Amino acid sequence: MVIRTVPPHSVPAIYDVCAVGNAIVDVIADCDDSFLEEHNIVKGSMTLIDEARADFLYKTMGPGIEMSGGSIANSAAGIAALGGTPTYIGKVKDDQLGGIFRHDMRSSGVHYPTAPSLTGPATARCLILVTSDAQRSMNTYLGACVDLLAEDIDAQQVANARVTLLEGYLFDKPKAQEAFRVAAKISHDAGRQLALSLSDTFCVDRHRDGFQELVRDEVDCLLTNEFELMSLYQVATFEEAIAIARTLCSIVVCTRSEKGAVITSGEETYKIDAEPVPVLLDSTGAGDLFAAGFLFGFTHGHDLPTSGRIGAIAAAEVIGHYGPRPQHDLKELVRTKGIKI
Amino acid sequence: MVIRTVPPHSVPAIYDVCAVGNAIVDVIADCDDSFLEEHNIVKGSMTLIDEARADFLYKTMGPGIEMSGGSIANSAAGIAALGGTPTYIGKVKDDQLGGIFRHDMRSSGVHYPTAPSLTGPATARCLILVTSDAQRSMNTYLGACVDLLAEDIDAQQVANARVTLLEGYLFDKPKAQEAFRVAAKISHDAGRQLALSLSDTFCVDRHRDGFQELVRDEVDCLLTNEFELMSLYQVATFEEAIAIARTLCSIVVCTRSEKGAVITSGEETYKIDAEPVPVLLDSTGAGDLFAAGFLFGFTHGHDLPTSGRIGAIAAAEVIGHYGPRPQHDLKELVRTKGIKI
Repeated sequence: MVIRTVPPHSVPAIYDVCAVGNAIVDVIADCDDSFLEEHNIVKGSMTLIDEARADFLYKTMGPGIEMSGGSIANSAAGIAALGGTPTYIGKVKDDQLGGIFRHDMRSSGVHYPTAPSLTGPATARCLILVTSDAQRSMNTYLGACVDLLAEDIDAQQVANARVTLLEGYLFDKPKAQEAFRVAAKISHDAGRQLALSLSDTFCVDRHRDGFQELVRDEVDCLLTNEFELMSLYQVATFEEAIAIARTLCSIVVCTRSEKGAVITSGEETYKIDAEPVPVLLDSTGAGDLFAAGFLFGFTHGHDLPTSGRIGAIAAAEVIGHYGPRPQHDLKELVRTKGIKI
Repeated sequence: MVIRTVPPHSVPAIYDVCAVGNAIVDVIADCDDSFLEEHNIVKGSMTLIDEARADFLYKTMGPGIEMSGGSIANSAAGIAALGGTPTYIGKVKDDQLGGIFRHDMRSSGVHYPTAPSLTGPATARCLILVTSDAQRSMNTYLGACVDLLAEDIDAQQVANARVTLLEGYLFDKPKAQEAFRVAAKISHDAGRQLALSLSDTFCVDRHRDGFQELVRDEVDCLLTNEFELMSLYQVATFEEAIAIARTLCSIVVCTRSEKGAVITSGEETYKIDAEPVPVLLDSTGAGDLFAAGFLFGFTHGHDLPTSGRIGAIAAAEVIGHYGPRPQHDLKELVRTKGIKI
């Protein structure tokens, strides 16, 4: 376990958070259950697909709408919407979808200098199939993301960020794993903190050993939901999972949907209530925005329960509309809840 | 005035409607009133912009979502959703946005064989700025649309469609005007009917003389809203406008938002009530879908008031959600209203 005594906000920094993730454009379309069955898609899962499968599924699926996504990119946009200073590292190609992704990040207020690749696979896309029960089945073609290399990790971005946040999904590409480790080293060498998002249970299944090692040796702050955490330590209950995780990682932030969240720090445990959501429209991005709110609070001198509360407020906002990025003034929203930011 | 005595559904045809229009991808973003003022954008208007202005506005505006649009393309998608057989002629480039447009048309059930251009400007896009009063200000960069030439008018598509529907916006490009006239000639030579959508009042202002001539000499069915029609004949009231139009055009279909629609045919006048809309979410595409419903009915042997009612039902559906294309089973919806289709 990494133990840091200096709180992140007490050290000067240019950025609150340096987010390293998969730069992906979402393509969202409705479908019925029989479409999932016919094409062997497990409902609610995120599956990696190759270009041929991506082309086939896209041709077969219905008309879609496109919007920028990517788990940790959503978090970066959320931190900007809270008035924070996020910077982002992620690879797109120099194509139209890449242009859309770069525009959306920058116009959201995220510093995003990573050079697009000029050759090779196209910008990554995630084909999201939405069934009438509002479940989302994701099929991700990583495309240009596979070109994220160690040399794309800009030391200035990482060393100048209070926290560097890594996306679990990056572990799906060997070269990006290397970029991941480079980012971790730069961050710690600069006396900064490292956060990891576990992304989803399927991703944990694919990389359990690597994640366990990383959490034990490198991660200061683990961002997860209860099912990912149970999968990580292969235990049957949330209580067992959190009991293990708290001994291995300084801060564990574990979301539990409508049950709220639990944050542990050494002996301390904080329970965070879920914010009331008037209409549950689309839960995509809820975890990403919880991470955004928590890390914003954490890097601005708020205590852990208050940081968690900011996370819960940001998550509730994104659940109340379609799309994985905030649409309202998150800063104002948090202030109306009595939190001074 | 063109007078046809043979109803369109009584002649064999491969397609109900051949829609000729601007193939455009919409980019939708929120903004506030001050953004419109600062950039001299007239609220609620559709303005044509060049590439430099498109690049500038896109760089300046907030994060967006992308979806296929184009007025008459929306109508074609609506006809397919009603169970009809639409075919579409419109030009995109062989780029990512063009691929998205082509996918969305085809997966909606629209026959769409127009070859994409391999060189020249990129696929057209419409930057739609939405203010908090739900008004939409559109800034259209025509891009590849300017490449729609007379030779792109596939005679087989036009001659085999009961009605060829032309988009008023096409008049904004001299070469496309020529394509327009070629389509009109093929349609009439094949004994088919010609419909024209006036698109918007600004478009009518730009091309009043050309539209007046076209309506008088070529158009069998004019699709318009009350403001476009008043602008076309430069009169102050809806009553005056319809009194002129009915003497010049066999069938006039004029929508009036919450007041419903009026359809004239010679001496006959039919008033169509607006369908109740539970929530007015986004009126984009309402006119396009009214046209879809009307033309579907008209080409399937329904009388004019029933065709108008199908138009009103289709328009109400698209108003009830975001985006200009139907999201529900329009065919089933019309059937639940007691109309056999």
